[in-house]
Amino acid sequence: MHLAQFVDHIENVFYMRLEWAIDDFIIPKERIGEYFNTLYAKKYNMTFSVHFSNEKARMAIFVSKMSHCLFDLLSRYSAGEWNVEIPLIISNHPDLEPVAKMFGIPYKIFEINKDNKAEQQAAMLQYVKEQKIDFIVLARYMQIISDEMIAQYQNKIINIHHSFLPAFVGAKPYQAAFDRGVKIIGATSHYVTAELDAGPIITQDVVHISHKDMPADLVNKGKDLEKIVLSHAVQKHIENKVLIYKNKTVVFS
Amino acid sequence: MHLAQFVDHIENVFYMRLEWAIDDFIIPKERIGEYFNTLYAKKYNMTFSVHFSNEKARMAIFVSKMSHCLFDLLSRYSAGEWNVEIPLIISNHPDLEPVAKMFGIPYKIFEINKDNKAEQQAAMLQYVKEQKIDFIVLARYMQIISDEMIAQYQNKIINIHHSFLPAFVGAKPYQAAFDRGVKIIGATSHYVTAELDAGPIITQDVVHISHKDMPADLVNKGKDLEKIVLSHAVQKHIENKVLIYKNKTVVFS
Amino acid sequence: MHLAQFVDHIENVFYMRLEWAIDDFIIPKERIGEYFNTLYAKKYNMTFSVHFSNEKARMAIFVSKMSHCLFDLLSRYSAGEWNVEIPLIISNHPDLEPVAKMFGIPYKIFEINKDNKAEQQAAMLQYVKEQKIDFIVLARYMQIISDEMIAQYQNKIINIHHSFLPAFVGAKPYQAAFDRGVKIIGATSHYVTAELDAGPIITQDVVHISHKDMPADLVNKGKDLEKIVLSHAVQKHIENKVLIYKNKTVVFS
Amino acid sequence: MHLAQFVDHIENVFYMRLEWAIDDFIIPKERIGEYFNTLYAKKYNMTFSVHFSNEKARMAIFVSKMSHCLFDLLSRYSAGEWNVEIPLIISNHPDLEPVAKMFGIPYKIFEINKDNKAEQQAAMLQYVKEQKIDFIVLARYMQIISDEMIAQYQNKIINIHHSFLPAFVGAKPYQAAFDRGVKIIGATSHYVTAELDAGPIITQDVVHISHKDMPADLVNKGKDLEKIVLSHAVQKHIENKVLIYKNKTVVFS
Repeated sequence: MHLAQFVDHIENVFYMRLEWAIDDFIIPKERIGEYFNTLYAKKYNMTFSVHFSNEKARMAIFVSKMSHCLFDLLSRYSAGEWNVEIPLIISNHPDLEPVAKMFGIPYKIFEINKDNKAEQQAAMLQYVKEQKIDFIVLARYMQIISDEMIAQYQNKIINIHHSFLPAFVGAKPYQAAFDRGVKIIGATSHYVTAELDAGPIITQDVVHISHKDMPADLVNKGKDLEKIVLSHAVQKHIENKVLIYKNKTVVFS
Repeated sequence: MHLAQFVDHIENVFYMRLEWAIDDFIIPKERIGEYFNTLYAKKYNMTFSVHFSNEKARMAIFVSKMSHCLFDLLSRYSAGEWNVEIPLIISNHPDLEPVAKMFGIPYKIFEINKDNKAEQQAAMLQYVKEQKIDFIVLARYMQIISDEMIAQYQNKIINIHHSFLPAFVGAKPYQAAFDRGVKIIGATSHYVTAELDAGPIITQDVVHISHKDMPADLVNKGKDLEKIVLSHAVQKHIENKVLIYKNKTVVFS
Repeated sequence: MHLAQFVDHIENVFYMRLEWAIDDFIIPKERIGEYFNTLYAKKYNMTFSVHFSNEKARMAIFVSKMSHCLFDLLSRYSAGEWNVEIPLIISNHPDLEPVAKMFGIPYKIFEINKDNKAEQQAAMLQYVKEQKIDFIVLARYMQIISDEMIAQYQNKIINIHHSFLPAFVGAKPYQAAFDRGVKIIGATSHYVTAELDAGPIITQDVVHISHKDMPADLVNKGKDLEKIVLSHAVQKHIENKVLIYKNKTVVFS
Repeated sequence: MHLAQFVDHIENVFYMRLEWAIDDFIIPKERIGEYFNTLYAKKYNMTFSVHFSNEKARMAIFVSKMSHCLFDLLSRYSAGEWNVEIPLIISNHPDLEPVAKMFGIPYKIFEINKDNKAEQQAAMLQYVKEQKIDFIVLARYMQIISDEMIAQYQNKIINIHHSFLPAFVGAKPYQAAFDRGVKIIGATSHYVTAELDAGPIITQDVVHISHKDMPADLVNKGKDLEKIVLSHAVQKHIENKVLIYKNKTVVFS
């Protein structure tokens, strides 16, 4: 039904995404992966995954106190635009519980302070796994994700960083952008890796600013960028249109 | 005729640009600066400059081997769009001499190697001063400007850097952008200061790219950004619409 | 506290927006308009309006079946970003009642068919006036607004049209854009006047498309444009930063 | 070496662009078209064309009085960026002859007034054919192209129109944009057909404007759009990456 391909002549890697109908397909649905592996993948040293459009992935959202990305994700979900289930919102603060309630989604708080951090991170990971979460969206979640969770959800955790990476890594990028006197601000959605704000980039966008914009204006203008950039990345991920190799992504249209 | 103003409430600085007609002005033209200084500037601790629209600033262009920015600058100049004189193009290579000839502009080569660097830089500075150059545009000039020249042309040297600063400072930003896997590339025009690619930013813009773009594609797509971003910055400088405070610019529209 | 001004030399009109604190202001708050009118407005033939930041305007939202703009408006409202009250959502369909309920806002249905149109429009107008609505946002409301309502809410009804006006006026602009083979699609927010899609434009934006985008893709890509363009226009209106003269707007930053 | 394809499921048309090396190709170079036609094109009712990268197409540029697009085209040509020959510039005015001379390109004037129009158009067509011109670029040429020339150069004449088509067809689009009070202006490059400004669109872009921009500002801001949009379209045409079906283009990346 759809075929997209790309050859990276520098890394010498071939990427392909193929969508087809399985009615009357002679291999049983549950053994397609096995057959493909036996007949092709092993032989050609391929990495592959198989997804069925009638099976919805389970997505968890992590938030802190800002609601704009959460609302944007949930409004698309609630409008039925995404082939996904969102059974869980996790936060380190109670602030956004009312939003979760509006959309009827369980909201679980894992308060984190410097004494309980390791313990709470372990509890979060266990809980996420119990809930059979397939991938995680950090919708302005202002805590570091544990290495253990990153390892177990490799290329399955999508973050939004409020700058055009690799500029302004880390905390307070809008203040840093203001201090540097840039004329554009940006937002970047990427997969989370062990190194802060350095994982494979999925989507990026910018907006022009001027000397009239104070740090508070950058925060406000940035919100619209952040939510759209994050939602576009999540949509590509849900559609299985993002392939990853080393630290870069192929994003099919 | 035109008035623009801006208050920076954080630094507590007031900026104003005022354009007026001097027909029937009671202060003699050549003493306006002196009068303003005596009556207002000293009293209120103001920094100011006076420019007359019938006096054209003298602009030198420094180039190396790439012609796209040079052509863009000269085509605007040649079309009479800019109130400026361009009496001089300087290069470390002979490659663009034919372009200078096409436009009838003297082209002076200062070859630079590691043995003659200090000497050539001194000669360039002396030559530029002899030619009464008011400001310098680095149109993809691939040599470091001497501290001495930067000091003598403070906020008078405009560079184009082929990335969205502060990302990808220094050499080979397109290769670095490719290696990082960004989804946008950019260009930044800024005043040159002693610290590399860290001076006050005048204009910036970006263009979207995808995984299909190899380093050579980034170079090609970047060229159009670079020339437009640089020319817009030069235009604002020529129109005396850029005010500088600390390491930031106010750019009036 | 803030002052913005603009002189239209072609129409010979001066526009100003002034924000100030009224603590210790010698004219009583409720008589500021009267004083200003007596002392200045009459004399200089000025049009003016006075707004107090502690008084929230009452905004009604009209919707049909699509939820993306409604969610975007309500998520900003619910996050406390806007100095406004939204006491009422009106629709010609029941579809979005659940969204209104989520945010705790009354939802009133005025079903419209060709037999009851005039009658229902009259009822809507009466209801809106009873509810003391100050301005109306058409968040993809797919019915024509009556001339009577337009007359009574002059420059108080904000619409989002899903094209870059003046191209593709009227119904099905995405299909028309597809048929024409354009390489960009757009969205336009404007005040509603008696002539369809011809009122004063407040905000516009576009997104690039390619031959790969089918009409359904344009609809999807357009949704993000529509909601951001509409919300930005509504925000400017709420902040009283939009001044209107003839059929054009001055939008202060 | 490169393969790009696209299926238009609505028109039910398949498009493909294939680049390959002909060293050791068993069909003689000059008979590839014939073989392909016999073996495939007839059978499957295909339209096709064959181009060789060592054969440069001959491009004529038509201009009137504005130089910005001409300079942009010629600076790319002169930098060796394009696989094309430009043996001829045609104009209805003498103004840009100095630019043609700078680049060493013959400049031929066909003055047009209401009495000699048909005659001059016929002479132009004859001249262009004598010069074996393959395609024509209208770089702000302000005269109507004759139906005869359009017929003989079908999908071979590229125009730049200074608006985001289909808005502001015809003369003075910047004035029309100003009068309408739009917040963006645009430029559109398209193939010329018998109907004015209605041919297949190749590239489009826009820039944001504000109430502060007077018609003269729109003209200035538009120039940068026009030249980049036109040059990008010409580049795609030179690379044989534009396929046309009915009134729309497929533009391969």
